[in-house]
Amino acid sequence: MAKGTTPSLKDVAAAAGVSVTTVSRFVNGSLDLPFQTKKRIEDAIKTLNYRPNPHARRLSRGRSDTIGLVVPDIANRFFATLVAAVEQAADEKKLAVSLHATLNRPGREIEYLQLIERNHVDGLIFVTNHPDDGALAALINGSGKVIIVDEDIPDSKAPKLFCDNEQGGYLAGQHLAEQGHRHVLFIGGDERMISARRRYDGLLKALREQHGDEARADRYAGEYTIEYGRAAALDYLSGDRKATAIFASSDEIAIGLVEVFRSRGISIPGDISVIGFDDVGPLHLFAPPLTAIRQPVREIGRRSLELLLETNWHEWKPSASEELLPVEIVVRNSVAPPAK
Amino acid sequence: MAKGTTPSLKDVAAAAGVSVTTVSRFVNGSLDLPFQTKKRIEDAIKTLNYRPNPHARRLSRGRSDTIGLVVPDIANRFFATLVAAVEQAADEKKLAVSLHATLNRPGREIEYLQLIERNHVDGLIFVTNHPDDGALAALINGSGKVIIVDEDIPDSKAPKLFCDNEQGGYLAGQHLAEQGHRHVLFIGGDERMISARRRYDGLLKALREQHGDEARADRYAGEYTIEYGRAAALDYLSGDRKATAIFASSDEIAIGLVEVFRSRGISIPGDISVIGFDDVGPLHLFAPPLTAIRQPVREIGRRSLELLLETNWHEWKPSASEELLPVEIVVRNSVAPPAK
Repeated sequence: MAKGTTPSLKDVAAAAGVSVTTVSRFVNGSLDLPFQTKKRIEDAIKTLNYRPNPHARRLSRGRSDTIGLVVPDIANRFFATLVAAVEQAADEKKLAVSLHATLNRPGREIEYLQLIERNHVDGLIFVTNHPDDGALAALINGSGKVIIVDEDIPDSKAPKLFCDNEQGGYLAGQHLAEQGHRHVLFIGGDERMISARRRYDGLLKALREQHGDEARADRYAGEYTIEYGRAAALDYLSGDRKATAIFASSDEIAIGLVEVFRSRGISIPGDISVIGFDDVGPLHLFAPPLTAIRQPVREIGRRSLELLLETNWHEWKPSASEELLPVEIVVRNSVAPPAK
Repeated sequence: MAKGTTPSLKDVAAAAGVSVTTVSRFVNGSLDLPFQTKKRIEDAIKTLNYRPNPHARRLSRGRSDTIGLVVPDIANRFFATLVAAVEQAADEKKLAVSLHATLNRPGREIEYLQLIERNHVDGLIFVTNHPDDGALAALINGSGKVIIVDEDIPDSKAPKLFCDNEQGGYLAGQHLAEQGHRHVLFIGGDERMISARRRYDGLLKALREQHGDEARADRYAGEYTIEYGRAAALDYLSGDRKATAIFASSDEIAIGLVEVFRSRGISIPGDISVIGFDDVGPLHLFAPPLTAIRQPVREIGRRSLELLLETNWHEWKPSASEELLPVEIVVRNSVAPPAK
C-alpha cells in the first residue's frame, strides 16, 4: 500500500492473503468464514486501520440495510417462530427487519407490498396462507427481489422455499398405516394450496402402499386456526366417525381438536388416533403428548434470508425455482391401533 | 348545504345531528360509536355524497398512516399475541404497522428506535423486557410519540400501559395460601423489572395475609424463556425443595419447568403445586391442565394503540403516566394442598 493513502479493500485482501470479494463479503456481513481466515482479515483491518466506506457498503447491498418480512398471522406460533428465525439470521448479518402481519387479508398484503416498495427495503420475504386470485403474483412479478416462503403463490416468478409437504404427509400416513389405520381424516387448508394438496397426496400414497384399495382419506378443508380445529372436531363427532385416525395439518388445528375431544370425553388414542403437523407448540406436554410431523421452522427462516441475500438480483431473470427442506416425524403417544 | 358546492364535514354533522369532531373522528376511524349514531352519520354521508379529503385525513393523523411496534421476542407467544392484537386494532383504523423484533438486545432496540424515526411512523408502541441502563429512556424522551407497554423503562416520560402485576401476584399467592402453601418459590424476571418486583410483592402480601410470619417466598430471577424454566427446575430439584409450590411468572418458564418435572417423574400437583402467568399458550391441554394468572393480552394490544391515537401529541408535555389493566386467575388442576 502506498504511504499516506487511505487503505483499500485490496490492501486488506493482500495482507490477509484472500480475494477482494472475500473481504468485501466478510465486511458487509454476508459471508461466514473459518475462524482462522476471519482472524487474518480482522488483523489486516486492524493493522492497516482500514475503514469500510459506509456509503459503498450500503450501495453494494441495496439502499436501506433493511429487509422486509410479510407473514399472515403472528399469533400463530409457526409464523412467530419463523419470524424469530429470520430476525436472528438478519441480526447476524447486521440487517434490520421490517415486519408486517397481514391478518391473511389480501387487501392488507397488497398494501404492505406497496408500502415496502416505498420504504425501499433491500428485498422481501413473503409468506401468505390463502389462495391467491392472481393479484399477489402480479405485484410480486412486478417488483422483484421477493422470496416466497412456506406456501406457494401460483404464477409468481420468484425463488421459493417450502418444507417438503408431501414427505410430511407420507410420514404421517406411513406411521398411521403401520398401526393398522386404513381410513384417515385429513384436516387441512384449502386444496388450492400446496400445503394442503401435497400433504394429502403424501398421506394417501402411504396409506395405499400399505393397504391398497382399502386405503381411504377423507378431507376437511378450512383455515389453520384453533377455531377451525374446534369446528372440524365437532363435524367429525356429528358424522359417522368411520375414520379411525385424524391427521391435523397444523398445531393450531390440533389444539382446537384436542380441546373439543377432551371436553367431550373422547380419548386420544383410545377412541381415535391423532397426528399433528408443525410441532412448534408444546405438544410434548399435552395429555397425551401428540405425535407430529415437525417442520424445520428455524431452518426455513434462516434459509429464506440466505436465498434473498445470495440471489444476484442485478442479473436475475424472473423465473420460479423451488427448494424443499426435509421434515421429520416425532413419535409420542397419540397414535395407537384402531379401536375395535 | 349550498347547492352545487362540495359537501363538508360540517354538512354531514348537521344532517346527522352530531358534532363536527364526532364526524371527523368517526371518518378517520379513531372513534367507536353506538350503532344508531354510526348509522345516522353513514346515511348522511351517503345522502350528501360526502367524500373525505384523503390529504387532510393524512395530515390530521401524521405523515405515514403507519405506526411502529417494537417487541423483544416474537417467538414468545405472549408478545406474538400482543402484536396480533395491535395489528387487528390498527387494521380497523386503516393503519399499517411496521413491526420490529429486538431479540431483547439493547443495540437492536436503539437501532430500531432510530430506524423508526427515519421512516416517519406516526408513533411507536415500545415493549422491552430487560432492565434499561438509561439509554432507551434517553432516546424515548428525545423522540416523543411513544407508548411504553408491558414492562417499564424507568425515567422514560411517556404514557405507560401495564397489566396489574401486583394483583396477579396477589391472586396467585391467595390461591396457593388457601390450599395451605406457606412457602412458595417465585421464578420470574430480574428484580429491577416491575413485572418481577410487583408480582413478587403481590405474592408475598397474599401469603402473609393468610399465614403471617410463617409465609415465605423464595426468588429465582432469570429470563422469560423455556430454557430458563428448565434451568430453574433443575436448580429447584437439586436444592432442599422446601417450597411446596412454584409460581412461574411466564408461560415460557412454566413450559420449561413442566418439561423437566415430567421427565424426572415429579408429579404436579402431587409432589409440587405450580401456578403460571400469562395463559396465552394452550396450558389447558397440558397434563395436568395448568392453573394460571391470565393477562388480558388482546386488550393490552388494543388499548396501547388507542393510547397512541388518543394522545394529543401536539400539546403533550413529557410526563410519565401509568394505566393498569386487570388480570384474572384461571383455576385448573395444578395446585393442591402441600404433599405431606
